[in-house]
Amino acid sequence: MSGEFDLIRTYFSAATGQRDDCVLGIGDDCALLTVPAGKQLAVSLDTLVSGRHFLESTDPERLGHKALAVNLSDLAAMGAQPAWVTLGMTLPAADVAWRSWLSAFMQGFAGLAAQHNVQLVGGDTTRGPLSFSVQVHGFVEPGEALRRDAAQPGDKVYVSGTLGDAALGLKVLLGALESADNPNELVRQLEVPVPRVELGRNLLGLARAAIDISDGLLADLGHICQKSGVGMRLRCDQLPLSAEVAGYLELGGDWSIPLAGGDDYELAFTVPPDKSSEVERLGDTLGMSLRCVGEVLEKPGITVLDIDGKTLDVLGEGYDHFR
Amino acid sequence: MSGEFDLIRTYFSAATGQRDDCVLGIGDDCALLTVPAGKQLAVSLDTLVSGRHFLESTDPERLGHKALAVNLSDLAAMGAQPAWVTLGMTLPAADVAWRSWLSAFMQGFAGLAAQHNVQLVGGDTTRGPLSFSVQVHGFVEPGEALRRDAAQPGDKVYVSGTLGDAALGLKVLLGALESADNPNELVRQLEVPVPRVELGRNLLGLARAAIDISDGLLADLGHICQKSGVGMRLRCDQLPLSAEVAGYLELGGDWSIPLAGGDDYELAFTVPPDKSSEVERLGDTLGMSLRCVGEVLEKPGITVLDIDGKTLDVLGEGYDHFR
Repeated sequence: MSGEFDLIRTYFSAATGQRDDCVLGIGDDCALLTVPAGKQLAVSLDTLVSGRHFLESTDPERLGHKALAVNLSDLAAMGAQPAWVTLGMTLPAADVAWRSWLSAFMQGFAGLAAQHNVQLVGGDTTRGPLSFSVQVHGFVEPGEALRRDAAQPGDKVYVSGTLGDAALGLKVLLGALESADNPNELVRQLEVPVPRVELGRNLLGLARAAIDISDGLLADLGHICQKSGVGMRLRCDQLPLSAEVAGYLELGGDWSIPLAGGDDYELAFTVPPDKSSEVERLGDTLGMSLRCVGEVLEKPGITVLDIDGKTLDVLGEGYDHFR
Repeated sequence: MSGEFDLIRTYFSAATGQRDDCVLGIGDDCALLTVPAGKQLAVSLDTLVSGRHFLESTDPERLGHKALAVNLSDLAAMGAQPAWVTLGMTLPAADVAWRSWLSAFMQGFAGLAAQHNVQLVGGDTTRGPLSFSVQVHGFVEPGEALRRDAAQPGDKVYVSGTLGDAALGLKVLLGALESADNPNELVRQLEVPVPRVELGRNLLGLARAAIDISDGLLADLGHICQKSGVGMRLRCDQLPLSAEVAGYLELGGDWSIPLAGGDDYELAFTVPPDKSSEVERLGDTLGMSLRCVGEVLEKPGITVLDIDGKTLDVLGEGYDHFR
């Protein structure tokens, strides 16, 4: 690491909170951490590359938020409680402009970290094409984690929040959306996702399988189906849609937006049918939409009933179409 | 992650060993891990970028080895026992050539992982300029870890192995070394470093402070001095040198090679003076050179006595020279 990059590493230290279970944080060869007795450690690593996962023009404070949010979303999908994070940051230069960029990035990152009592415990800064890797670490009770392989036929399939707003937000940024009532809000949904950490924690013992919706509803439910050896039937008329996305569809817009748009960072999960009312109460308690969008079947493949009740075999040709 | 990159992720699964303390490995939102009761978790994240940390022409199997080795070296420097690793891989393409490259990379990575019973428990593959981030996870007994802030005046400063071979190896690759008896061996020292994990474990309770030599002896000892609030005096005539590096210096070569060349991945550590004989016995037991190169002083700054006994103030002008 060059001297310049040693210096900008100070932005890391400024961004971090303090937790008793972090014995030694940034500044040595390793961080030293204590996992609470009787808890399992859940970890997830994501790499985000400029031009592929985000536009370089993205507001750096929002990007810092999102860098952590998408990783907290992975913890949420397992039902884990966030604790620590590490950050590997690759910047094109260490000049004034990039230092300012990093300062804003860390502000967004640290703001979300503080909300979830997450401490930045280590990392690396280096020079190269803009990208970063984030690893989150959380705790979960042994045997309780929400896994992709636990769905069972007869389960109801639920989705939190609304679907497709982020995908429309990307269309706004790319100039590909002709009309929207509130384009800035759509962009905010894309750039400032809210990780469903509290929901994930509350789904322990209630949901069977869960995943966060990053690649798009169909692709991510496909992961649950594949790992669990099951299929699903979904109903387009049950999908939770914002007024913006509903309006887009009424004007003849593409259903791939809510079904496969991606970047929603909501949770999709399956629940035994006798626990439906408990899910509804949880939604009320959390003040959050938890919508049943379909059910788990024995037969592999995801079937979608479109708004006219027609069947669309999305694991065949339709699925690739949605990619 | 695109479908192509889902596919190449299969190379990850093929590369991983199995440990009982990994409850859930690659393939879900998070890995689930169990830290042994009564142990602290040590973690370290490094990002390596093509053209900055390695040449793109580097043999990919060697690069896969080195990617893990430099991280295991961080665990070694804390005295931690390696357990798990995550890998975020960014590749320019997913075509046949890059798949072949990744297959070779993972072979080198997995080979070293198997030697240390390290399991690859998670990761990410994406498209972009060639780079990768590696996070290692290990265990250490509470209060026993070798930290940078624990050196005390009067301690002896030790270095394992030899210094400067990797820096000469880089000169070989760059065509900047006029003569060498065994240039391939120098390149091997650069490209296939051996992390000193067993040494680190054996230094618990023996050494006070430790660090691995990645940026160069002076820079890395400087980190110990800064964190411990001490200084050091080193003697060039005590530096452990291979025949190649000694020959290079006899022909008038630059002493910055062993003092500041970097990429040695040996351990530098300080030891209370009454434990010197114990260090010598440890070197005999491990069949490894452990050489006393100087001592810790109260006064800040690193003083180097050159081969003629003259003082070189390396924390002033000389230090920058060595960078």
